[in-house]
Amino acid sequence: MTEANARFYRAFEALDLAAMEAVWARGEHVKCVHPGWPLLTGWPAVRESWRAIFENTEEMRFTISDVRVETGGLLGSDVGGRVAVTAILATNLFTRVDDAWFLIHHHASHVLSSAEVSES
Amino acid sequence: MTEANARFYRAFEALDLAAMEAVWARGEHVKCVHPGWPLLTGWPAVRESWRAIFENTEEMRFTISDVRVETGGLLGSDVGGRVAVTAILATNLFTRVDDAWFLIHHHASHVLSSAEVSES
Repeated sequence: MTEANARFYRAFEALDLAAMEAVWARGEHVKCVHPGWPLLTGWPAVRESWRAIFENTEEMRFTISDVRVETGGLLGSDVGGRVAVTAILATNLFTRVDDAWFLIHHHASHVLSSAEVSES
Repeated sequence: MTEANARFYRAFEALDLAAMEAVWARGEHVKCVHPGWPLLTGWPAVRESWRAIFENTEEMRFTISDVRVETGGLLGSDVGGRVAVTAILATNLFTRVDDAWFLIHHHASHVLSSAEVSES
């Protein structure tokens, strides 16, 4: 699952839609929340969001830190990630199909710089 | 799990720390991301965050909408939620212990009002 998570961020950095497609599960149950975006549900909407993001992004670099993996049955989760000057937290859920893990749920959000001392 | 999710939001609205404690699993693997906050890991840090939030909050009301439930093995996830004038998206992961579901992962973030047309 750590490898599947790494493939996700490599596809994101490469702005490579085919590679991103290979990372995700298919179906109406896949879900994606980009930072500040509303919930996207179903593979067609999720795929379209990546297409639009890749088309409108010139460069993307991640320094992944603080990855935690939890596995329970056929669902696993993964959290962590940091973008250039922006700190991002992501919850990634993977589903296992045969021996491979596929992303079914990505929820990313910004960490506010004052968050450490904020109370809401 | 839908019931466990509802208990979480009832405890949040009631600003009731004991009720919130009853919702969560224990252990070093529980994780919580409040909107804009950094990742909190482990029950003591998560509990302390709720204590501080409840102590500094006068009123909290949720209108829960758009709840989706997915279950795989012993992990389940739940997404949705909306706060007063602020739209919040939350990914909630539950773990099953005997016949009961306990929250092990809460990731909440704001939806920007311009999000529908934004591209990043």
